[in-house]
Amino acid sequence: MKNFSLDHVATELGAELRLAPGAGSADDITGLNTLAAAAAGDLSFLASANYRRFLEDTAATAVLVKEADAADCPVTALVVEDPYLAFARATALFDDTPHYAPGIEHGAQVHENAEVDPTAVVRAGAVISAFAKIGAGAVIGPNCVVGEDSVIGAGTQLRAGVVVYHSCHIGEHCMIHSNSVIGSDGFGFAPAADGWEKIYQLGGVEIGDHVEIGSCTTIDRGALGNTVIGRGVKIDNHVQIAHNVEIGDYTAMAAYSAVAGSAKVGKRCLIAGDAGIVGHISIADGTQVMAKTLVTSSIDKPGSYSSGTPYSDTRSWRKNAVRFSQLDKIARKVAELEKKVGKAGK
Amino acid sequence: MKNFSLDHVATELGAELRLAPGAGSADDITGLNTLAAAAAGDLSFLASANYRRFLEDTAATAVLVKEADAADCPVTALVVEDPYLAFARATALFDDTPHYAPGIEHGAQVHENAEVDPTAVVRAGAVISAFAKIGAGAVIGPNCVVGEDSVIGAGTQLRAGVVVYHSCHIGEHCMIHSNSVIGSDGFGFAPAADGWEKIYQLGGVEIGDHVEIGSCTTIDRGALGNTVIGRGVKIDNHVQIAHNVEIGDYTAMAAYSAVAGSAKVGKRCLIAGDAGIVGHISIADGTQVMAKTLVTSSIDKPGSYSSGTPYSDTRSWRKNAVRFSQLDKIARKVAELEKKVGKAGK
Amino acid sequence: MKNFSLDHVATELGAELRLAPGAGSADDITGLNTLAAAAAGDLSFLASANYRRFLEDTAATAVLVKEADAADCPVTALVVEDPYLAFARATALFDDTPHYAPGIEHGAQVHENAEVDPTAVVRAGAVISAFAKIGAGAVIGPNCVVGEDSVIGAGTQLRAGVVVYHSCHIGEHCMIHSNSVIGSDGFGFAPAADGWEKIYQLGGVEIGDHVEIGSCTTIDRGALGNTVIGRGVKIDNHVQIAHNVEIGDYTAMAAYSAVAGSAKVGKRCLIAGDAGIVGHISIADGTQVMAKTLVTSSIDKPGSYSSGTPYSDTRSWRKNAVRFSQLDKIARKVAELEKKVGKAGK
Repeated sequence: MKNFSLDHVATELGAELRLAPGAGSADDITGLNTLAAAAAGDLSFLASANYRRFLEDTAATAVLVKEADAADCPVTALVVEDPYLAFARATALFDDTPHYAPGIEHGAQVHENAEVDPTAVVRAGAVISAFAKIGAGAVIGPNCVVGEDSVIGAGTQLRAGVVVYHSCHIGEHCMIHSNSVIGSDGFGFAPAADGWEKIYQLGGVEIGDHVEIGSCTTIDRGALGNTVIGRGVKIDNHVQIAHNVEIGDYTAMAAYSAVAGSAKVGKRCLIAGDAGIVGHISIADGTQVMAKTLVTSSIDKPGSYSSGTPYSDTRSWRKNAVRFSQLDKIARKVAELEKKVGKAGK
Repeated sequence: MKNFSLDHVATELGAELRLAPGAGSADDITGLNTLAAAAAGDLSFLASANYRRFLEDTAATAVLVKEADAADCPVTALVVEDPYLAFARATALFDDTPHYAPGIEHGAQVHENAEVDPTAVVRAGAVISAFAKIGAGAVIGPNCVVGEDSVIGAGTQLRAGVVVYHSCHIGEHCMIHSNSVIGSDGFGFAPAADGWEKIYQLGGVEIGDHVEIGSCTTIDRGALGNTVIGRGVKIDNHVQIAHNVEIGDYTAMAAYSAVAGSAKVGKRCLIAGDAGIVGHISIADGTQVMAKTLVTSSIDKPGSYSSGTPYSDTRSWRKNAVRFSQLDKIARKVAELEKKVGKAGK
Repeated sequence: MKNFSLDHVATELGAELRLAPGAGSADDITGLNTLAAAAAGDLSFLASANYRRFLEDTAATAVLVKEADAADCPVTALVVEDPYLAFARATALFDDTPHYAPGIEHGAQVHENAEVDPTAVVRAGAVISAFAKIGAGAVIGPNCVVGEDSVIGAGTQLRAGVVVYHSCHIGEHCMIHSNSVIGSDGFGFAPAADGWEKIYQLGGVEIGDHVEIGSCTTIDRGALGNTVIGRGVKIDNHVQIAHNVEIGDYTAMAAYSAVAGSAKVGKRCLIAGDAGIVGHISIADGTQVMAKTLVTSSIDKPGSYSSGTPYSDTRSWRKNAVRFSQLDKIARKVAELEKKVGKAGK
């Protein structure tokens, strides 16, 4: 277990330390927790008015608060401009994800023509192909595969089981979680007399710096030219990025969100869970697509977009759902009624 | 191929054996099949009235039936209270999934500080990290990775390619299918001036006993505290369980179902395929969520819940779908018409 | 980089070469690109009227065109009947996916009772189990696992991390992309007093020739009998095929499409992204299911089928979505109004 002094934590987070009566700046912080669950030794945070009610009775040793909430903090306050951001930074202090000694572990297979920086880690069972380059401080997890000519940038971590095909370029300080696949073939076939003719996918994948990608996510290589993921993009588990898609810088995509071939998603977009974006369209910077929404045409104006119906108990839902199938008929009836009644009213 | 006597099968399944004329209790049962597809040597079952019509002509050697159906069984009857449950137990008799000799196979990498029970199997290419514990009779499949401090309970099987991150606890007698990922980082980032600040995920994952998890499923570790999967939970392929979710005992979740961060799903729920549950809500014990439904608020009352629209041919669907976008307008027109007509009627 | 003469390309694609003024049949073709992005040395194609406007100014060295467009081609024309199909064939010429020398690489584990054709490749970290058969020219990628008694047909490629369970049969000339799982247990459990009783999945998986399967896709083994994928079927990433499903020849399934247990999908169907087909139903040959559609009953008549609602800005969507929950009530009001107004009109 890690522990830090209040003073150290305040310095690391750029917070102003306001000690509670009896507290000392050398007091230990040994963990992080929510206001309600925190115990002695914990640092907590008040980032939303929803949790304000838990402030009074928190057992935390210290709380990250805004100036406006500092007076109400019953324990030591660490005053910051943005408590949620400061909390995020605090999690880095307490992160205990294991680290590994630089070098190539026993059981890894590194091709003689691969270039692995001496400060990089290649863990057991990983396969590094010819002409691949692994940057300084990069960590290639157990049983990962890096294809020919692919580049893994400095400081980037591939967790266990990640597969990067040939001719893909991953930026610096990225993290890719387990069993995700970068650079598999886009889904391209031409109809032929006797079935489907494969369109070989000749492009690659280009991923910017500071990108995080979840587990079991797939990013296909381009058919002609690259699939491109911008800087600072955050991608959750089970996401599908098809061939030749472009995702703008700092866009975030939740689990199961999918972008079909050659679509362009702007910068700083938020794509919620299971949202789909069809192929060959563009989504404006700053657009928000809500959960399970299917976007079927280009969006030029940023804003929030939705589709689907509200959920309800199945019995009620069925009654309404049946009417959906009659909707055009109902609308026509209303129009006719309006005509009749309007006339009648005159 | 396995074979058992009718007598042995009856004893194993707690069934009352009613031999058909000419049959003997030592007759061989060599397989299982449906009433319609069964051949000589097969055991079959009648578990639903839908299949009753196949009973008369079945070529099965014996059939699991309820007392009420026994008289109509043209072949040897194995009378049980619950034929479907008895059929499930019969599948265990005929299961031919390969077994492996205890020990650490050549090509596995076991850290010197890991504890592997001598009755456990660690197959080729598996990586067992420092301070991990592998319980008695557990099977760690080829190319699996078990992280530091993680525990795999007695009798639990990880099939090929499963990744368990550090500090996760898998119960006893679980089965996790290939390429699933337990304990990767939850999707947590705080907005910062220059993009997103990572919220390191400091919690773990805790999975109860007798849990089965399909292939390519992901269960993220908690941000603070654990993600918790109850006892006897059954999870299909491609399921996503986000950080700090709790799934109650014996709940079943079909393919692509997803639960967002910090949501709590009750006990004995049935979550159908591609159903989504948003973050920070609770679902009552015994709730059923239908396929592709998006649950956007807490459910306090058990029952069945649905969203979406019925499918139809695309031409009809388009006509109705266009009207969905006019629905508020149509409803207002109807209200106005009511006013007018109501008045007129008075 | 590859390069071919115009003459060679024309011969390979069965095209009629019509040289532009100053061009020679020995001129080099060094790549492929779209009309708009092509540069000198590139072969391009005009396969859709949408792209006709780019023909005039293309910088391509040659363009695959139909006879009808040949006169308008400002550069060398390669005249073919189907330019898109010819383009697909051209991608095969320029494919630079790495090839490997036949044999078993260092770090692979091949069981002494497995049969690996001497012309096959088994890459590092792959595990080939007892009685598995690997056909002529097949490529088993790094860290793949092939289970007991399974067959990988001649010329079939498993890319890195693919898991094939025991007793599965993959045809010839298939390609399966990384981290997909073939033959894991179908999701079958019988309700029991103390939770769920596992139905062991006694069947296997049978995949025809010329099938392509994307990354992170799962095809479950049958409960009784096999799950069957027909010849020439094309399956994208993240697809779920449940136990005992049958997919007809040449059907194509996009990302996240899913077929539940025992459903039968016909031949030459197109199943779009995130479309779901419930269990135990049949879909006619040649049916098209649109994105995110849930098919809940058998389709006997080929055609295009859809469900869901159009997307719009969330504010408008909310107004309409609320009305969906009142739809049955609205329909009843309209019916009443019709009665009243109809009577009034008489």
